[in-house]
Amino acid sequence: MKPIQVGLLGIGTVGSGTFEVLRRNQEEIRRRAGRGIQITMVADLDVARARAIVGEGVTVVGDAREVIANPEIDIVIELIGGYGIAKALVMEAIAAGKHVVTANKALLAVHGTEIFAAASQRGVMVAFEAAVAGGIPIIKALREGLTANRIQWIAGIINGTTNFILSEMRGKGLDFDVVLKEAQRLGYAEADPTFDIEGVDAAHKATIMSAIAFGIPVQFDKAHVEGITKLSAIDIRYAEQLGYRIKLLGIAKRRPRPNAAGDAAVGIELRVHPSLVPSKRLIANVEGAMNAVVVQGDAVGTTLYYGKGAGSEPTASAVIADLVDVTRLHTADPHHRVPHLAFQPDAMSDLPVLPMSEVVTSYYLRLRVADQAGVLAQVTGLLAGRGISIDAVLQREADEVGGEGATSTDLIILTHDTREGTMNEVLEQLQALPSVLAPIVRIRKEELN
Amino acid sequence: MKPIQVGLLGIGTVGSGTFEVLRRNQEEIRRRAGRGIQITMVADLDVARARAIVGEGVTVVGDAREVIANPEIDIVIELIGGYGIAKALVMEAIAAGKHVVTANKALLAVHGTEIFAAASQRGVMVAFEAAVAGGIPIIKALREGLTANRIQWIAGIINGTTNFILSEMRGKGLDFDVVLKEAQRLGYAEADPTFDIEGVDAAHKATIMSAIAFGIPVQFDKAHVEGITKLSAIDIRYAEQLGYRIKLLGIAKRRPRPNAAGDAAVGIELRVHPSLVPSKRLIANVEGAMNAVVVQGDAVGTTLYYGKGAGSEPTASAVIADLVDVTRLHTADPHHRVPHLAFQPDAMSDLPVLPMSEVVTSYYLRLRVADQAGVLAQVTGLLAGRGISIDAVLQREADEVGGEGATSTDLIILTHDTREGTMNEVLEQLQALPSVLAPIVRIRKEELN
Repeated sequence: MKPIQVGLLGIGTVGSGTFEVLRRNQEEIRRRAGRGIQITMVADLDVARARAIVGEGVTVVGDAREVIANPEIDIVIELIGGYGIAKALVMEAIAAGKHVVTANKALLAVHGTEIFAAASQRGVMVAFEAAVAGGIPIIKALREGLTANRIQWIAGIINGTTNFILSEMRGKGLDFDVVLKEAQRLGYAEADPTFDIEGVDAAHKATIMSAIAFGIPVQFDKAHVEGITKLSAIDIRYAEQLGYRIKLLGIAKRRPRPNAAGDAAVGIELRVHPSLVPSKRLIANVEGAMNAVVVQGDAVGTTLYYGKGAGSEPTASAVIADLVDVTRLHTADPHHRVPHLAFQPDAMSDLPVLPMSEVVTSYYLRLRVADQAGVLAQVTGLLAGRGISIDAVLQREADEVGGEGATSTDLIILTHDTREGTMNEVLEQLQALPSVLAPIVRIRKEELN
Repeated sequence: MKPIQVGLLGIGTVGSGTFEVLRRNQEEIRRRAGRGIQITMVADLDVARARAIVGEGVTVVGDAREVIANPEIDIVIELIGGYGIAKALVMEAIAAGKHVVTANKALLAVHGTEIFAAASQRGVMVAFEAAVAGGIPIIKALREGLTANRIQWIAGIINGTTNFILSEMRGKGLDFDVVLKEAQRLGYAEADPTFDIEGVDAAHKATIMSAIAFGIPVQFDKAHVEGITKLSAIDIRYAEQLGYRIKLLGIAKRRPRPNAAGDAAVGIELRVHPSLVPSKRLIANVEGAMNAVVVQGDAVGTTLYYGKGAGSEPTASAVIADLVDVTRLHTADPHHRVPHLAFQPDAMSDLPVLPMSEVVTSYYLRLRVADQAGVLAQVTGLLAGRGISIDAVLQREADEVGGEGATSTDLIILTHDTREGTMNEVLEQLQALPSVLAPIVRIRKEELN
């Protein structure tokens, strides 16, 4: 049987990795897929560089539309990124009856609904294992491996740049800014690291996982997105003393009814923010640029998937797995393929993504307070008054903060689960206390058990 | 569309979990599969108990052949276990044109080649996610998620009973026999724990993974099988001091040519035995009855999969994932389904499974030696003479062992990679030294990097 013909749009880091791995392991891949898989056409704005990577024997063009228009091409790989031209090209490839493989999380998190609908209507597949957690086959695990389960929650370290920075901050006791510069020097952070450090990249991935786990449409605009730029070394140290590490987690969680923590609404929590995680959890020990995703299902319990979340060949591994899947399945009746978002298009859920005020979680609070009698009682009294129960208290580092012998101290409080809206109101009250001397630091905490 | 009709053979722990999860999550599963999945017929020798589990509305019979003969049944789940009647029934179900889902690792590790050949010929699927590592979708990860890769090695904690025992031995400093009794009392070990503690169960699973990873036939008879019954608390403690934990690993490894460690043959290592693993590796921190599998691929690097490896609902999760896969794919052209052993039947490899003497690994050696000058030089001299280089030495616990003030001491040596055959020869020489006072303890060591 003649090899599947693949057209590649954009041959940067991941594209050249894909080309190289497909060439190096072509025999191994053919033995698995039952058919050869060849990149026969590449489009890149930099034609000369593309030519240098692929050598002779592959058609190189500057215009991606030439690839889409080529009737010999069975599958189009989109590795351009972003929402602009990438979206137009993916839609055109679908319209031309091509199967599409993409690593573009931003595109799918924002425009997935439109793209998957077009693909279903045209009877083609859009595969995107590489869009979440690089080489870790987490999309496959969620969409196929855990189909028996009512998924309860997903929590993942799904951005390597921020995990590298947090690992370094903890390991070396340094503050964010210092480590960011080091990460940029080492190539773990880009020159403009905004999408990574502000949590946007993780939120794209969490959005895609939320859709697959719960059968809801992708709704990036409803995700809560918070990065690591405001984290201090001191909070990482206090967390450590309390038996926790701080990780940037992408969380998608089903809030069941009834719930113990007040009258929060039923729906899906979708949020990216720094979180305290118990140090003894496996995911708390995922260091450096590695990724890991924990999935909790009602039948299987806790499962975890770990590996490289970025990089040329790890991401290529996911792109090629999709190529093999499409090769294996493209002759199957479209209605019997795996649905794009794990659930059949006519069986999606309308569970709402909850506003952040309806999220239920626990908290780490650090208050800089006057070191005087009655402050602890005042603070804990306010919390108790709103039904917020306390898990642990740590009082540390009394020191001179000014004249007249006045001293201040750090008061650390870990709370049990509470509704975020309630916590916001209490924080306002706490912040207004005369004995609270500085802005309160609030970091969410996930037990992940 | 009418639901897929499933017949269940054997409704014990996993069978009743499968029935319960299918019933509880039927709506969720139907929304994913695009079609309902129902167990409509159950065969069990204990008809009354089976009836009590499934209630009315399901046909219960004492004779499994009635299920196989029922033309309404699309898929047969085999949960009887063992090589005997289970094999006959699986072969008959295939002959009757039924798809088969099984959790029977022993059957597949020993008779897989015959079973898969029959299934391919008849155009039906035999799915077995539940046969390895319970609820962890490791078969899917290996067979579909990592298809881009030339797999280099797999190392897994794939037996929960032994991992529970090893965790307790380490945590409490107790010896094997004591902990085994506790594990039996708690239900983590069976009354006859032989298959678990002697490594047989892990070897069945490692055999299946070796076939899928490397495209070789299942060859359980060639696996090296060694359990944990001879492990002492003292070696767990010494390992800890050296920065290692001891785990029972199932290992399948491609020995590449050329290799640095002498002239070991090219082929596949397939072995189950206790292994030192660096404490900082994630897999070294997998405690209790949990399972984890590390897979190293040339493109993706290291990936790890973690979860419950046994139990009613975790295993049911894998059984049902297979039911959904079959439901999604059974109308597809058989030649375009995922091959049973990951590689196309006509593209299997004839790489041999290597005899243990050809395995290359590193070692932990504990020698009880006379505490006198020159012993260390004598021991290390013998090792050096055979080209075995030393990674670390620990000399501890000198104490009185007899009259005349003679003392003895534990000498611990960690070696670098060497051929096992060479190590065996050196161990004979070392054991013959007059200054070596007790049988030498040898435990293999895997860096897993």
